Amino acid sequence: MIVVKIGGTSGVNFDLVTEDLAALIKAGHKLVVVHGGSGETNAISEQLGHPPQFVTSPSGYTSRYTNRATLEIFAMVTTGKISTLIVERLQKLGVNALSLSGVDGRLMLARRKDAIRIIDPVSGKQRLLRDDYTGKIETVNASLLNLLLDAGYTPVVGPLAISPEGEALNVDADRAAAMVAGAVHAEKLIILSNVPGLLRQFPDESTLIPRIAKDKLEPALEFAEGRMKKKVLGASEALQLGVAEVVFADGRVAQAVTRALAGYGTVIS
Amino acid sequence: MIVVKIGGTSGVNFDLVTEDLAALIKAGHKLVVVHGGSGETNAISEQLGHPPQFVTSPSGYTSRYTNRATLEIFAMVTTGKISTLIVERLQKLGVNALSLSGVDGRLMLARRKDAIRIIDPVSGKQRLLRDDYTGKIETVNASLLNLLLDAGYTPVVGPLAISPEGEALNVDADRAAAMVAGAVHAEKLIILSNVPGLLRQFPDESTLIPRIAKDKLEPALEFAEGRMKKKVLGASEALQLGVAEVVFADGRVAQAVTRALAGYGTVIS
Repeated sequence: MIVVKIGGTSGVNFDLVTEDLAALIKAGHKLVVVHGGSGETNAISEQLGHPPQFVTSPSGYTSRYTNRATLEIFAMVTTGKISTLIVERLQKLGVNALSLSGVDGRLMLARRKDAIRIIDPVSGKQRLLRDDYTGKIETVNASLLNLLLDAGYTPVVGPLAISPEGEALNVDADRAAAMVAGAVHAEKLIILSNVPGLLRQFPDESTLIPRIAKDKLEPALEFAEGRMKKKVLGASEALQLGVAEVVFADGRVAQAVTRALAGYGTVIS
Repeated sequence: MIVVKIGGTSGVNFDLVTEDLAALIKAGHKLVVVHGGSGETNAISEQLGHPPQFVTSPSGYTSRYTNRATLEIFAMVTTGKISTLIVERLQKLGVNALSLSGVDGRLMLARRKDAIRIIDPVSGKQRLLRDDYTGKIETVNASLLNLLLDAGYTPVVGPLAISPEGEALNVDADRAAAMVAGAVHAEKLIILSNVPGLLRQFPDESTLIPRIAKDKLEPALEFAEGRMKKKVLGASEALQLGVAEVVFADGRVAQAVTRALAGYGTVIS
């Protein structure tokens, strides 16, 4: 089993990636696809007159400020548009794909962060944000994924989760992919984005780090810029959950997943 | 098995309807929910600067003109927003609901209407419209619905279908509900909207027609105004597929489905 995370960032070539996924599935691989949707959500939020806002934690992680209105736009874009269009692409290629968000069948159960500590962008001081619908995934309903996989469907998972009380929550897609990979006992987690992997000196692609031992991942965090920080965190979580190998790979090129499986990108194991 | 169609029209009370559905499911009923989304799609299309357009067929049926941009907005709203929020409401009430559009797992396979004959709103003459992504459902993947129902999930189905070539298509939700009801061998199809049933003199609610024999449905079409025409067509299709009873009922009131099962509304059998 392989879990492939497709970044929502501009630059990742969805047509090429889905072609590659279809070829791998036809060759006998079992796959679960997880996707993000930040870039597209930002664009549609702007069009709807509700511009996105981001907050930064004291440890430097950036995340979307998600009040209820933002959550509904995020659900609309990630589940309704991105998931549907990935499923449509795979169906055109003969793969019987099916989309699920974490709300469906309680696929991803998360703890809502009641209050998140952020750095106030104006004062630079720490403060608490309370009306945020962001969650941290605690469990994945692997039996639902296995039920569908065993019946021949390829699940395409979007970045929403559900709280024990039944509230939809925005979750980080890289960490969602890590939790899914752990739950289905995937051998590999491939995280595609618009860079060739972890770069020692971002954005200089000649400084790609080709291999990282799993116990050397924490020092590698210092090289991670912006959203790459969460990918490193996701990789670390997946490895802790028993996934043997995580690859950060380039989603802009043909056969991106095939290349990642062959060891191109940053391989962490 | 009961299939419940929830109208997308304003006036249907989603909170009350989902409470009633949850109570029925807990009492042992097996249910599939099908929903529309015209009203909400219109509102969001306007906000996105892409106002909705409608066309009328020579026989007087009105439908959405769905070019590719409209299709993507329709998918976003129906699948991403309406389905997700229905699932979220049911999950809050302890029902393990799960959303699917007809694209997922090829749930609803439809023939795309290559060219649809419409009445030109300016000239009043008939002409053909060719870039429309609207379909007529031909088969429903009942095995997917049964797989999920047997595993304890309640499917919530949105009004998209897929062509044999893998294109997503907009389909009429009432007729989708009819096809789903036929495929899962439902005993009853309940169609909720913002009127108490079929009215002899629309919109005078005191002219409700309480009972129609299935072989008297065609003459009843003359009383159907606007969107009610498609509901009558859906009812007719469901009955032909072996569904024993179709009820047009009021979705604005408490216990709407329970009341419909008890015979309130227009019962066709």
